[in-house]
Amino acid sequence: MEKNLWNHVTTLRTQSPLIHNITNLVVMNQTANALLAVNASPVMAHAHSEVKDMVRIAQGLLINLGTLDEYWIESMLRAAEAALSLGKPWVLDPVGAGATPYRDQCLKKLLAHRPSVIRGNGSEIMALARTNSSSTKGVDSTASSLQALYSAQVLVEETGAVVCISGETDIIVDRDGNMVMVDNGHPMMTKVTGMGCTASALIAAFAAVVENKTEATAAAMVLLGIAGEWAAKNSQGPGSFQANLLDKLHNIRESEFEEALQIRSK
Amino acid sequence: MEKNLWNHVTTLRTQSPLIHNITNLVVMNQTANALLAVNASPVMAHAHSEVKDMVRIAQGLLINLGTLDEYWIESMLRAAEAALSLGKPWVLDPVGAGATPYRDQCLKKLLAHRPSVIRGNGSEIMALARTNSSSTKGVDSTASSLQALYSAQVLVEETGAVVCISGETDIIVDRDGNMVMVDNGHPMMTKVTGMGCTASALIAAFAAVVENKTEATAAAMVLLGIAGEWAAKNSQGPGSFQANLLDKLHNIRESEFEEALQIRSK
Amino acid sequence: MEKNLWNHVTTLRTQSPLIHNITNLVVMNQTANALLAVNASPVMAHAHSEVKDMVRIAQGLLINLGTLDEYWIESMLRAAEAALSLGKPWVLDPVGAGATPYRDQCLKKLLAHRPSVIRGNGSEIMALARTNSSSTKGVDSTASSLQALYSAQVLVEETGAVVCISGETDIIVDRDGNMVMVDNGHPMMTKVTGMGCTASALIAAFAAVVENKTEATAAAMVLLGIAGEWAAKNSQGPGSFQANLLDKLHNIRESEFEEALQIRSK
Repeated sequence: MEKNLWNHVTTLRTQSPLIHNITNLVVMNQTANALLAVNASPVMAHAHSEVKDMVRIAQGLLINLGTLDEYWIESMLRAAEAALSLGKPWVLDPVGAGATPYRDQCLKKLLAHRPSVIRGNGSEIMALARTNSSSTKGVDSTASSLQALYSAQVLVEETGAVVCISGETDIIVDRDGNMVMVDNGHPMMTKVTGMGCTASALIAAFAAVVENKTEATAAAMVLLGIAGEWAAKNSQGPGSFQANLLDKLHNIRESEFEEALQIRSK
Repeated sequence: MEKNLWNHVTTLRTQSPLIHNITNLVVMNQTANALLAVNASPVMAHAHSEVKDMVRIAQGLLINLGTLDEYWIESMLRAAEAALSLGKPWVLDPVGAGATPYRDQCLKKLLAHRPSVIRGNGSEIMALARTNSSSTKGVDSTASSLQALYSAQVLVEETGAVVCISGETDIIVDRDGNMVMVDNGHPMMTKVTGMGCTASALIAAFAAVVENKTEATAAAMVLLGIAGEWAAKNSQGPGSFQANLLDKLHNIRESEFEEALQIRSK
Repeated sequence: MEKNLWNHVTTLRTQSPLIHNITNLVVMNQTANALLAVNASPVMAHAHSEVKDMVRIAQGLLINLGTLDEYWIESMLRAAEAALSLGKPWVLDPVGAGATPYRDQCLKKLLAHRPSVIRGNGSEIMALARTNSSSTKGVDSTASSLQALYSAQVLVEETGAVVCISGETDIIVDRDGNMVMVDNGHPMMTKVTGMGCTASALIAAFAAVVENKTEATAAAMVLLGIAGEWAAKNSQGPGSFQANLLDKLHNIRESEFEEALQIRSK
């Protein structure tokens, strides 16, 4: 897999897929700019009157729950349904799963439309697995890598999605039993809002052009992680970090990518 | 015209008009900051309960379709109607024209309120002309400068607006038969979201203080283009570009402006 | 009070409170990043179906009227009511008070839920005092420091809130008769959107961890003002200013803070 990842970056840059984002109000600008930086083409659209039409012309879809409300959830459900029926890859970012009962109800409905990839942090993935299971499967609310991993595997089994738990080490699991671990990234990424959201948007972009969704997910996490490492090294704080991150997502070269790549799989 | 443009920048800085923006969720922050950088005063307001009151106290209005939905379209229609009846200049940015039937229906209704200026890229201007015409006028969906120009002239004729097609060369046409071409700008501007939206907001600011809307439009396109050239030269990528662009919009001096100005008219 | 302020910064960094923001569409990203920079944990949530649940798990609440509409006002009212009944500190930022009758009606309803702190500029504070008073109390619409101060004192008396008038000198008054003046800050802060909104968000963060709300408010205004001074000195314009501001909010040290502190009280 490692040797394919840079090729996927090149494919993304060349094919410039149109990515439809229904995402939260906090990160919209950042998401659009991150997609443009990797040469994808972002569109944000949520009107009930057009959301299915937009899915039709896009190559990939991102659904991010962040600032959900009743109108936006209906938009998300319509888009997810369209993506499933049209066979287009879609990524679910379950922001704040477990924080309120309403979020969990909405997530349960979204999961029924079978996302291609789910990315969240450990506690979100655990909450999502709890929400989705009819029977309690002993997933504890105390977050730990091991428990999150078990939850991810439950989600894989029940939904068929590739599941990515992001954290200091990102863990990606799929229904073929692959497990990929990405060690790229930097603590400064937790001091800027929307880094997880950006990761999910990049996954949607890679998933639009790479058949193997596990590799697409790994490529996104590695690219963002490497760009984040570079940006952190060249920044005085979270403000300059953001500018540097976009710069590096845009201008990263193969040699920089291969040299920094830290991935393990089993 | 060339000799008036810097005067318009000075007038804008001195008069600091209040510009009412009903724009998309992706670019709101950037739009507000670009307006502040040229010393205009931005306000964003869309509630049905107040949108007409806000038009009344503003000197100019921007309507940008980007992330439209049923509620926001009603806000836009109320605001455009108020601007027309109060004789206040308003600018239409038809983001995504032609992408979905819903967008086109909304645009047709907005055009009925006679925008002072319309700014879009070539394919948006072509889609808009198609949408507005009762009879098909042979405007082809394949974008080319020539076809976009023909569409722009159809729109000028039918709506009375100044129309600006933005691209590598921006073309501005009006009902007095003027055609102005602006060659300022830089390819990096396509790697950052919302540059077109920023252009439209700046047009609204200039249109609020300059009687001749063709010159107001040209001043905005030139100013943004020159600032973009400077920013690109001093940036490593799209992240640092954005900070540099706002800096230059704010601190550009007459000598820099006159030296970089690239405009032709006939 | 002066000697406590840096301790409050340290307390905030250590306790990392969850701050629930119902704020405007222009500044959401910036607000989230400013809160992260001081090590608070931001959440944005406005759905009627969950807004009270989110207040329950947060340590503080910010309500900012900026881009209000009928749905969002209902969210704000539910959240404010929940905060009052749960005894959680909440901050009101009355953006655009006085601009339209609708804003003033909404503000009157919000004030009934007794904010812990109110922060606005001089004309907003004056409009708010006019709105809230059943009898006209001679508060004139022509802004001046003295008139704003009188309005602030009327608001303190009627609502019990700490009131902060922000401007070249920020003035903070409370029901114990304290008056604190903060001279930190820089004119560049008026050339960037959302600096007032950021101030209010930081007040919410400090108010979540500091019992004395007057000191919490002063700490926020001083910290933002000092970071703004540093950022302005190291910037070429409003674009680089924003990155530098976040950097300094994040990495400011005690010696820098104490040396720059400019506060008076009586």
